[in-house]
Amino acid sequence: MSNHVYKQIELTGSSPTSIDDAIRNAVKKAAKTLHNLQWFQVVEVRGYIKDGDVAHFQVTLKIGFTLDD
Amino acid sequence: MSNHVYKQIELTGSSPTSIDDAIRNAVKKAAKTLHNLQWFQVVEVRGYIKDGDVAHFQVTLKIGFTLDD
Amino acid sequence: MSNHVYKQIELTGSSPTSIDDAIRNAVKKAAKTLHNLQWFQVVEVRGYIKDGDVAHFQVTLKIGFTLDD
Amino acid sequence: MSNHVYKQIELTGSSPTSIDDAIRNAVKKAAKTLHNLQWFQVVEVRGYIKDGDVAHFQVTLKIGFTLDD
Amino acid sequence: MSNHVYKQIELTGSSPTSIDDAIRNAVKKAAKTLHNLQWFQVVEVRGYIKDGDVAHFQVTLKIGFTLDD
Amino acid sequence: MSNHVYKQIELTGSSPTSIDDAIRNAVKKAAKTLHNLQWFQVVEVRGYIKDGDVAHFQVTLKIGFTLDD
Amino acid sequence: MSNHVYKQIELTGSSPTSIDDAIRNAVKKAAKTLHNLQWFQVVEVRGYIKDGDVAHFQVTLKIGFTLDD
Amino acid sequence: MSNHVYKQIELTGSSPTSIDDAIRNAVKKAAKTLHNLQWFQVVEVRGYIKDGDVAHFQVTLKIGFTLDD
Amino acid sequence: MSNHVYKQIELTGSSPTSIDDAIRNAVKKAAKTLHNLQWFQVVEVRGYIKDGDVAHFQVTLKIGFTLDD
Amino acid sequence: MSNHVYKQIELTGSSPTSIDDAIRNAVKKAAKTLHNLQWFQVVEVRGYIKDGDVAHFQVTLKIGFTLDD
Amino acid sequence: MSNHVYKQIELTGSSPTSIDDAIRNAVKKAAKTLHNLQWFQVVEVRGYIKDGDVAHFQVTLKIGFTLDD
Amino acid sequence: MSNHVYKQIELTGSSPTSIDDAIRNAVKKAAKTLHNLQWFQVVEVRGYIKDGDVAHFQVTLKIGFTLDD
Repeated sequence: MSNHVYKQIELTGSSPTSIDDAIRNAVKKAAKTLHNLQWFQVVEVRGYIKDGDVAHFQVTLKIGFTLDD
Repeated sequence: MSNHVYKQIELTGSSPTSIDDAIRNAVKKAAKTLHNLQWFQVVEVRGYIKDGDVAHFQVTLKIGFTLDD
Repeated sequence: MSNHVYKQIELTGSSPTSIDDAIRNAVKKAAKTLHNLQWFQVVEVRGYIKDGDVAHFQVTLKIGFTLDD
Repeated sequence: MSNHVYKQIELTGSSPTSIDDAIRNAVKKAAKTLHNLQWFQVVEVRGYIKDGDVAHFQVTLKIGFTLDD
Repeated sequence: MSNHVYKQIELTGSSPTSIDDAIRNAVKKAAKTLHNLQWFQVVEVRGYIKDGDVAHFQVTLKIGFTLDD
Repeated sequence: MSNHVYKQIELTGSSPTSIDDAIRNAVKKAAKTLHNLQWFQVVEVRGYIKDGDVAHFQVTLKIGFTLDD
Repeated sequence: MSNHVYKQIELTGSSPTSIDDAIRNAVKKAAKTLHNLQWFQVVEVRGYIKDGDVAHFQVTLKIGFTLDD
Repeated sequence: MSNHVYKQIELTGSSPTSIDDAIRNAVKKAAKTLHNLQWFQVVEVRGYIKDGDVAHFQVTLKIGFTLDD
Repeated sequence: MSNHVYKQIELTGSSPTSIDDAIRNAVKKAAKTLHNLQWFQVVEVRGYIKDGDVAHFQVTLKIGFTLDD
Repeated sequence: MSNHVYKQIELTGSSPTSIDDAIRNAVKKAAKTLHNLQWFQVVEVRGYIKDGDVAHFQVTLKIGFTLDD
Repeated sequence: MSNHVYKQIELTGSSPTSIDDAIRNAVKKAAKTLHNLQWFQVVEVRGYIKDGDVAHFQVTLKIGFTLDD
Repeated sequence: MSNHVYKQIELTGSSPTSIDDAIRNAVKKAAKTLHNLQWFQVVEVRGYIKDGDVAHFQVTLKIGFTLDD
């Protein structure tokens, strides 16, 4: 296992509900085209405001996955 | 739209419940005196501890809004 | 109060449910062996992915407590 | 002069033309309501893209000014 | 709109003329193979020197675009 | 207390004497127009030099205060 | 040469032997599918521990390559 | 000497008087339970405000000491 | 496994030979008193110079381990 | 070429016209006393304000050059 | 004045007494060989510990000065 | 010893072999013209790629030395 090479991509997920949900949305989207997803790291949490409340959260993640041999 | 000027202020919201809630509290407070709020960015997440559990979350945000012409 | 000295330790809590929950798990664990816990600060939010969804969130905290005189 | 106190505010200027112009737009806007502006510092350069080209540059500045006695 | 997922890639554009031009070159290059480009953020500004003057500016950008559903 | 919202502003105090004094000058200036000041955080320490010695220290602070309900 | 556009990707190489070797493993892996690789920059050095010693080093790199015209 | 291993801990000292004094208070507190203290590094300078003046300075330090063989 | 809590400590290992060796020395020292060591992260690489060459490398690590239940 | 040693110095150029021009001014100044200049990296962009507009831009650069053998 | 070019050098001053004094020592030392010193910026504050107290403070500064025409 | 003033310069060493070797090359080069070299700190690790492998490592260091009295 110790010679594996991993690639990280950077995605931004959004959700009107919560930060946790925005993360899950980004991970699920990545899983549609990439397999071997291993981990994520939160890079930034932002959001848009409408009518004086949070309209949606935007969470930017690095997502790491194993490159196939 | 491309010549707009935006101002950012820095607020800290708190909540005994969740990070999401602390963010919403800060945004709602800002909306009481400022209109044209556009976005926020999380700067820091801290909190206070009491009786061995989280007493409340404190989330510091930059909040951006359009300056009126 | 102004001459107190505080110590900070760094813990990582995890939870399959939410970031808030991972923070509470780390704080509760610290409270089992340390008293006088005062505050925490989030250092990093990461997580592991399994079957195309978040398996668990991992939140690294600095936790501060008063050193006894 | 050595006992002056300065305040910094954070503004984001935009321009379809250039980074320099976005900075000037933010400074001119600040000058409409604040006097004694002294300096600025670039915090971030971003921009929006439309039809495969830069639509406008957005430059976030800290702008410092002397507080009146 | 609030459930969109965005991807960011990192490109470095160069230009013998100006920083603005180096940014536009990177954005136009990205637009040849990606649609739905939304925004960019400047990560680093460097350059090469020849004969005692700037030979070309090199600007590294994160460029964000919407992932198709 | 856990639902309070705080605002931070950024001031630069100066003093020919010491860093501590520059901090106190900024805090006292802020206290002239704002009540409910709670805490400060040092952002940057700079200074000007004249005749081969420090002419005055300049300390930039974030100062936090409770927003009234 | 001054109008070239470069792309950077982020890979993590690992090796039970050394940091240098983990870097070489990531570069060689990238070279299997990308040509025109130009440079790398170390982003992070981590590793896993087993039986009280380093089991393998993990080095995260940004790797830059020329985009074909 | 070149094979020594050092440990760093993070303490916050406070003082109503000065930053220097807050540092000395943290170092003296550490010296009560740890010997072989070697160096410190300032991580953060904060403070609390009361009645429009600095009530006390809070300085967070990393303190390094030699681990006994 | 997802509810584990980890603690990180910060150690500095040194070696006259190499960076890799300084890391291994710090990890081995930690393993003498702590079990369940899981990972490390390099925080800083420094060193001392003597007679115009590197006398020894000093590598500061965060080392993470599982807290026992 | 692979055994070359480079030195970096830090200069601040200024210009009433543009950021690009401030960079060129610093590079040209360096070229008067140093040969073998190779590259620059922008460290900070600041400026002074007069009469409600940018008086001049100030760009701080690291400039790298080959040390002669 | 707006076309001046400034150079920054990095010095570390030390003092057994105070941070302010360590800064003044570094500035005075620089003034022995350089004229036209303009400003300084604190980069890092460290220190050495002896007999359970601060032996001396070490403050690293960037010091800027005008390059002669 | 506590009143010494140190200067830091920034050099980049390179080596086709290893990171350790690139560091040693930079230190040895500095030692040719400067005496009283005391320590180094790694600022950045980069490298160039050729034929799908690392051509040479480039390590940027701050190197500190005592200024003579």
